[in-house]
Amino acid sequence: MANSTAVKPAGKRERLVAGARSLIHEQGVQRTTIAEVAERADVPVGNVYYYFKTKDELVGAVVDGYIADIQAALVRLDRHRTPQARLKALVQMWVDQREDVAQHGCPLGSLCSELGKNDGSGLDVDGAEMLRIEVDWAEGQFRSLGRRDARDLAISLLSGIQGAALLANTFREPEILSRQARRLDRWIDSLA
Amino acid sequence: MANSTAVKPAGKRERLVAGARSLIHEQGVQRTTIAEVAERADVPVGNVYYYFKTKDELVGAVVDGYIADIQAALVRLDRHRTPQARLKALVQMWVDQREDVAQHGCPLGSLCSELGKNDGSGLDVDGAEMLRIEVDWAEGQFRSLGRRDARDLAISLLSGIQGAALLANTFREPEILSRQARRLDRWIDSLA
Repeated sequence: MANSTAVKPAGKRERLVAGARSLIHEQGVQRTTIAEVAERADVPVGNVYYYFKTKDELVGAVVDGYIADIQAALVRLDRHRTPQARLKALVQMWVDQREDVAQHGCPLGSLCSELGKNDGSGLDVDGAEMLRIEVDWAEGQFRSLGRRDARDLAISLLSGIQGAALLANTFREPEILSRQARRLDRWIDSLA
Repeated sequence: MANSTAVKPAGKRERLVAGARSLIHEQGVQRTTIAEVAERADVPVGNVYYYFKTKDELVGAVVDGYIADIQAALVRLDRHRTPQARLKALVQMWVDQREDVAQHGCPLGSLCSELGKNDGSGLDVDGAEMLRIEVDWAEGQFRSLGRRDARDLAISLLSGIQGAALLANTFREPEILSRQARRLDRWIDSLA
């Protein structure tokens, strides 16, 4: 983020969401306090409530930010020429982040896992949208390959990625993601 | 648990661990308080510290309980005659719990996901043991099938289970686990 935006109100909101995103990834929603987010974002804690009335609102903004990022990433993947290449490029996104995933978990998967312990906030439903966009997109790619079981294949692919991310994090072994990616790549080729 | 054990100190400890286990599954470690566990276990909150000096100690006891249960479950699975049947019976354990998993996540996987956000307690290392036992056991089965890539296959199998559990929970769709199990069963057969 450019320093020049730091003095504008819009910059503060963005910094708060970015700070909340990284803190939630590092330590989860529950452990993250508004005061920590304010400090990470270099925003006076008293200003936070101008942008977010509740912590849930801030978490919702983090989810919305992830959704926007995922949609942008999928648009970039669509530039690959074949469905197989697009699906492999999706898998590669986790390989590229493997050190970070091994340290703190998949940002999306671990957030969904925490929100899945429904606390009545409704954030679990918002959070599910992050993974649903990816499943829907993968389903579209498998359909382009002429697969009637495209939905099941998409669920299976995302399961393979998310499960490997969980194991990579649990065992602190980033290479679990690289090895799983090679296996998933061969599987994608076998379906074409 | 029999009512007759309720007056014995050993019964109280067991009830506290059982209460903590179910609360942690339902709402995660962070949201679970000692007071809630005491209430769920029907133990006076002032007595808790006789058994567990800290919340981390209580969470550690929950992890130890899971490890004992997993080891006992794997001994039962060993009674199946072939490695394929044993591996499929492992997968079936999650299918049998699919409603619960869709509601609150895999008890082991979601706990590892939360502990993976290392809080310095060392519980992440203890928690990893829960999944490691399963991976080691599955590796042994794949080795019995003569597979040199047994470790990779074991990681891939557990990834497929844990990822499907996460998606079943995120989308509140228990049948994701049933469908993934059918796919994993065919995959196990293809490796033999």
